[in-house]
Amino acid sequence: MRSPEAPIRQLIGIDVGATKVAVAVGDDAGRLRAHARRPTEASGRPAEDVARIAEDVKRVVAEAGLSLSDIAAAGITAPGPLDPERGVVLSPPNLRGWRDVPVAAQLREALGVPVFLENDANAAALAEWHFGAARGLRHVVYLTMSTGVGGGLILDGRLYRGVLASAGEIGHAPVEWDGEPCACGQRGCLEAYAGGAAWTRRLRATAPAESRAVALAGAREAVKPEHLVAAAREGDRFALAELARWNGYVARGIVWIAMALAPEVVVLGTIASAAGEALALGPIRAEVARRIWPHLAERLRILPAGLGESLPYHAGISVAVEGLRDD
Amino acid sequence: MRSPEAPIRQLIGIDVGATKVAVAVGDDAGRLRAHARRPTEASGRPAEDVARIAEDVKRVVAEAGLSLSDIAAAGITAPGPLDPERGVVLSPPNLRGWRDVPVAAQLREALGVPVFLENDANAAALAEWHFGAARGLRHVVYLTMSTGVGGGLILDGRLYRGVLASAGEIGHAPVEWDGEPCACGQRGCLEAYAGGAAWTRRLRATAPAESRAVALAGAREAVKPEHLVAAAREGDRFALAELARWNGYVARGIVWIAMALAPEVVVLGTIASAAGEALALGPIRAEVARRIWPHLAERLRILPAGLGESLPYHAGISVAVEGLRDD
Repeated sequence: MRSPEAPIRQLIGIDVGATKVAVAVGDDAGRLRAHARRPTEASGRPAEDVARIAEDVKRVVAEAGLSLSDIAAAGITAPGPLDPERGVVLSPPNLRGWRDVPVAAQLREALGVPVFLENDANAAALAEWHFGAARGLRHVVYLTMSTGVGGGLILDGRLYRGVLASAGEIGHAPVEWDGEPCACGQRGCLEAYAGGAAWTRRLRATAPAESRAVALAGAREAVKPEHLVAAAREGDRFALAELARWNGYVARGIVWIAMALAPEVVVLGTIASAAGEALALGPIRAEVARRIWPHLAERLRILPAGLGESLPYHAGISVAVEGLRDD
Repeated sequence: MRSPEAPIRQLIGIDVGATKVAVAVGDDAGRLRAHARRPTEASGRPAEDVARIAEDVKRVVAEAGLSLSDIAAAGITAPGPLDPERGVVLSPPNLRGWRDVPVAAQLREALGVPVFLENDANAAALAEWHFGAARGLRHVVYLTMSTGVGGGLILDGRLYRGVLASAGEIGHAPVEWDGEPCACGQRGCLEAYAGGAAWTRRLRATAPAESRAVALAGAREAVKPEHLVAAAREGDRFALAELARWNGYVARGIVWIAMALAPEVVVLGTIASAAGEALALGPIRAEVARRIWPHLAERLRILPAGLGESLPYHAGISVAVEGLRDD
């Protein structure tokens, strides 16, 4: 999204996830110069965790052949809830001991560069918009479709956060009224049907012994969505039926998004992009088109995420790009 | 939404509805100086209809003690679909002969002032935000709750239109999957359950002869939502059950909006504001709070529209305010 005449800026991207910390140095055109990742190993003492991240950053900057004075800004992404305006991670369930951690201020102190914080779903939406499948568009909805279902909204060319930076929680909007209980405490959420964790539980409870998914996983209690997708590719009946059900629920979420927000594109991450055109994207598109107005269906693109493995790196870098823009 | 030091501007508001044309002159603080309304009587020749509207405007401007040279801009609202950027009404089902009518250019020619066009639901959202229940807020969702169910979105302090200016069509998002057929051609839309037209059909088909609503209407085939609301106030069992059902569907729509957009306020027009706190707004709030995350429920206000009868006048004026802002 940079204008052609703007000077190229070097940026740091940091992704603090429940399991991994990823750090990258790249420019605002999305070219990565160096990157590294390691297990998160949250110590229970967030200040120490942040100091360790600062050391990671210094190492990656050196590896990129740069010094911190070459860096225009850093973007850090973390699980919500967090406060992007104050740069504070509030109380993510999966980062031990992290509660009201002013990570942006702490890293700014340690690194001497502006630091911007964004939740992981919003950051992924920014990354797909700046560098991925939604480049150049104006109204973009991104859905993670991973263990959980998160979402991020780019509306009129800006990240839209809403109250408490909580907009885009499409994973916890209902696709069955009074449906299955969800980990969030509500019922019938999209995540309770289409999230990887909930789906895995269901597959392990219902996969018949003769399903190819069980054979590929080695045991019923080891079945994961990836085995199901592989089994569906081989024509396994259980796997095809389960994928059709999954596609139907994802489509329900997109129908609401399409009617409420009239975006140009819905970008689907992880499971949907892994399952691909024939098994997921095609059927989802057809189901959405059947349920929304024809003139909107004609204009709505439903695309797989463009970034894949580089997402954690590009997410932080796009947060830095966006932070400098708003600054 | 004007800053205190800005000079007061005189504006024209025009509402071209299926049944009535309303014209007003007022200022950007929402004070009306003069207004008039008359039956639309679309002639089938849109250029003549527009010329007649221009005459109405000149009369109301004179009545306000002003001349056209005192006017900063005019805002015109009409049923969709329309193209706000080009100022063209495309093909509303209820305006005879209106097809691709460049109404903004025609009125600009006739009046010599800038003219801005917006669809009626978006304009109502702007009016409630500038002058009504949502004044001073940043993230506002407006739902019409009238014959049909329309919607308008103010996000981050801007009207959000989406692709083909189609955002906010919450009335045609599904509240029952594969539910009742809707006039729009889809199934299970909020409008098919909570729109005045659909609800009136249902009431006439199901009201028991002994219901107070039938007595108030004079006959079952004359029952309207207003009779139902009056009967519910008197404790009529059928009326209370129907209102509870209606509230439940309205709540479903708001649940999705709340999770997807995290607005500060949802403003409900017409039926909801007429039914009032005890019969509609209170039960809707309780049902929404039960179905969304507590920290969002705590921050979400659900309010009746603030403008009532003056809405058609304030809608056009707020479109003029907004047009000048973007210009």
